[in-house]
Amino acid sequence: METFHINSAQGKARVGRITTLHGTIDTPAFIPVATLGAVHYVSADDLQALGTQALIANTYHLHLRPGEKLISQLGGLHSFMGWHKPLITDSGGFQVFSLGIGKYASQGKAFQPKPIPQNLKTWVSVNNDGVQFVSYVNGSKHQFTPESVIDIQFQLGSDIFLVLDECTSPQHDYDYTKTSMERTHQWAVRSVDAFVGQNQSRNHQLFGIIQGGYFKDLRQKSAEFIQSLPFHGYAIGGILGRNKQEMVDVISWVNELLPENKPRHLLGIGELEDIRQAVALGIDFFDCITPTRLAKTGTFLIRDHPRNRIHITNSSCSRDENPVSLDCPCIVCKNHSRAFLHHLFKVNAQLGCRLAAIHNVLFMEHYFNTIRTEIRENRFKER
Amino acid sequence: METFHINSAQGKARVGRITTLHGTIDTPAFIPVATLGAVHYVSADDLQALGTQALIANTYHLHLRPGEKLISQLGGLHSFMGWHKPLITDSGGFQVFSLGIGKYASQGKAFQPKPIPQNLKTWVSVNNDGVQFVSYVNGSKHQFTPESVIDIQFQLGSDIFLVLDECTSPQHDYDYTKTSMERTHQWAVRSVDAFVGQNQSRNHQLFGIIQGGYFKDLRQKSAEFIQSLPFHGYAIGGILGRNKQEMVDVISWVNELLPENKPRHLLGIGELEDIRQAVALGIDFFDCITPTRLAKTGTFLIRDHPRNRIHITNSSCSRDENPVSLDCPCIVCKNHSRAFLHHLFKVNAQLGCRLAAIHNVLFMEHYFNTIRTEIRENRFKER
Repeated sequence: METFHINSAQGKARVGRITTLHGTIDTPAFIPVATLGAVHYVSADDLQALGTQALIANTYHLHLRPGEKLISQLGGLHSFMGWHKPLITDSGGFQVFSLGIGKYASQGKAFQPKPIPQNLKTWVSVNNDGVQFVSYVNGSKHQFTPESVIDIQFQLGSDIFLVLDECTSPQHDYDYTKTSMERTHQWAVRSVDAFVGQNQSRNHQLFGIIQGGYFKDLRQKSAEFIQSLPFHGYAIGGILGRNKQEMVDVISWVNELLPENKPRHLLGIGELEDIRQAVALGIDFFDCITPTRLAKTGTFLIRDHPRNRIHITNSSCSRDENPVSLDCPCIVCKNHSRAFLHHLFKVNAQLGCRLAAIHNVLFMEHYFNTIRTEIRENRFKER
Repeated sequence: METFHINSAQGKARVGRITTLHGTIDTPAFIPVATLGAVHYVSADDLQALGTQALIANTYHLHLRPGEKLISQLGGLHSFMGWHKPLITDSGGFQVFSLGIGKYASQGKAFQPKPIPQNLKTWVSVNNDGVQFVSYVNGSKHQFTPESVIDIQFQLGSDIFLVLDECTSPQHDYDYTKTSMERTHQWAVRSVDAFVGQNQSRNHQLFGIIQGGYFKDLRQKSAEFIQSLPFHGYAIGGILGRNKQEMVDVISWVNELLPENKPRHLLGIGELEDIRQAVALGIDFFDCITPTRLAKTGTFLIRDHPRNRIHITNSSCSRDENPVSLDCPCIVCKNHSRAFLHHLFKVNAQLGCRLAAIHNVLFMEHYFNTIRTEIRENRFKER
């Protein structure tokens, strides 16, 4: 089965389609985050109605609660979530990073380095075999190995698996980043072995993850190594640079070396100002918590506004009878004024968060639909 | 315009239809509570899809936030809420009570009396002119009179108004309850005068409220007095007795004296165990926060279970692949297992509250639909 097909391209930007057992994903695509099996405020049937193509859930979090064994007994993650379209599962590498050095260093994808204290104690220890960590829920001890993470994902039954990797931060120097990357590469080999042995049905796909921090030679080495393995696609992980320009550099270095005919996933990025640049460099899909996290504080995504967003709690919205966006076909913009939404947030009505999430999820669908159309019609612009 | 028509009856229970400018309400009916202009977790378009016939919002709360003036400027409450079916507005009498003696006495509708301390300080003072109170939001001072409450409701533009009343509690003795009831009666006369003067379009309806505590002669006196005024319907307010039997008594005393051809609203009652008894005594509609308040803690309404509910957070649900109810056509029961819903509450996903609210609102719609069918087919039972 051909799992990725490119239909048209403009420069390095391309429109393609990923095929999975649970349906297809038209790329470039935005994948909403359902960390624990649910998108914030929005149910599976809502997402179906909004045109969401796929979701990404998290192996690490689902392993802790409710556990892959229960999900498997209940018929797998699609059935558990009530979501019958494509599902990606993140390996938990980034979450392990968040609880380790990331917990000290703040978890952004692009930030300024600061020195790591000597003897920093974290909840996580990494060695060549795998990673040991303590549950943030109840303090219980756990171990992930490349093999166990593949096994968990088979129990979850997602369509696209991601390998276990180690994420480094800008605090890590060249030497540590190199050592860590080489460990991630060995884990990738072990992941492929574990995957191929179990994927007899060929119903699942495995994506490799490219590490190497913001060091050009390491990113290139990682891209070359990972693309040499029989993955169905590639994800770019870890720290993507200390600023926006370095992010562009990292993506460029990597994408130049990746084969054209496999999909590329930029992990954890979903800010509108980054997306078009990344698409222009040949990225095919994105996942990010941003649209639903912004919803929580009453931030609505909208074009042609500073930073592409409005804060509905601003007093300027309190008497505004216009919808959030006149062009938006979502139920929120069709049925409610900014003044009403402002009121909901001012009185702490949970319904406000839901309405913002509905709007933001649909906004992202439309945003990517527009990008696909522009590429097909050869009029895509990176800004 | 005939505003209420009885289509069939079985004993004192009856099936009728209330007609308003924004559509009809088939009775007996359950009216979900949208205190501040929104039902918890569920949007106006959801409610439309769920078959909700009408909502009840609160004059007191909307007066404080965002204010009737703003709502009027934005086209009235229907437009503000995005709800274009019938709307009732509660007068705020009960809320005034809640912040007064009710704040000391706990706010139940049926509870045991305990003595009122001397010189109890509350946020509220009542005299014959009206009621002065302090905003719980920002400490600002406000006054409600029967006339001002009618005026606010005209600005809101709801379909059915309720008059300002004073709610007494079981702590109040016969003498205070009598004095208070007489004040409520004088307020009712003033309310009718204020209403008739402004309701030139005849687009709105005004319901009177019967008080009198749990004293038979006072309830009878109140029913006789209120039914002598030109109201479109009647509501039974205040303390409905100190136990379930006294509630039945209060409803019986009052309904015997009310005219058959006007609708009767039992304020603030919505527990399933009370509804059938009240319908059997001739009550036509109910409002209560219960279905959506239960949703917050993961309590799902279901027939043929103890107290007609299951607590999804119980460990017995953690591995249960059945829906909440096999018979329920709601999206939650169609798409999700108890195990998934249990998981959502265990990880504090807000989506859990929403799904519970969707289920509970639809449950109440079906419950009342069944009651109407049973009465029509002469097979309604009060238990």
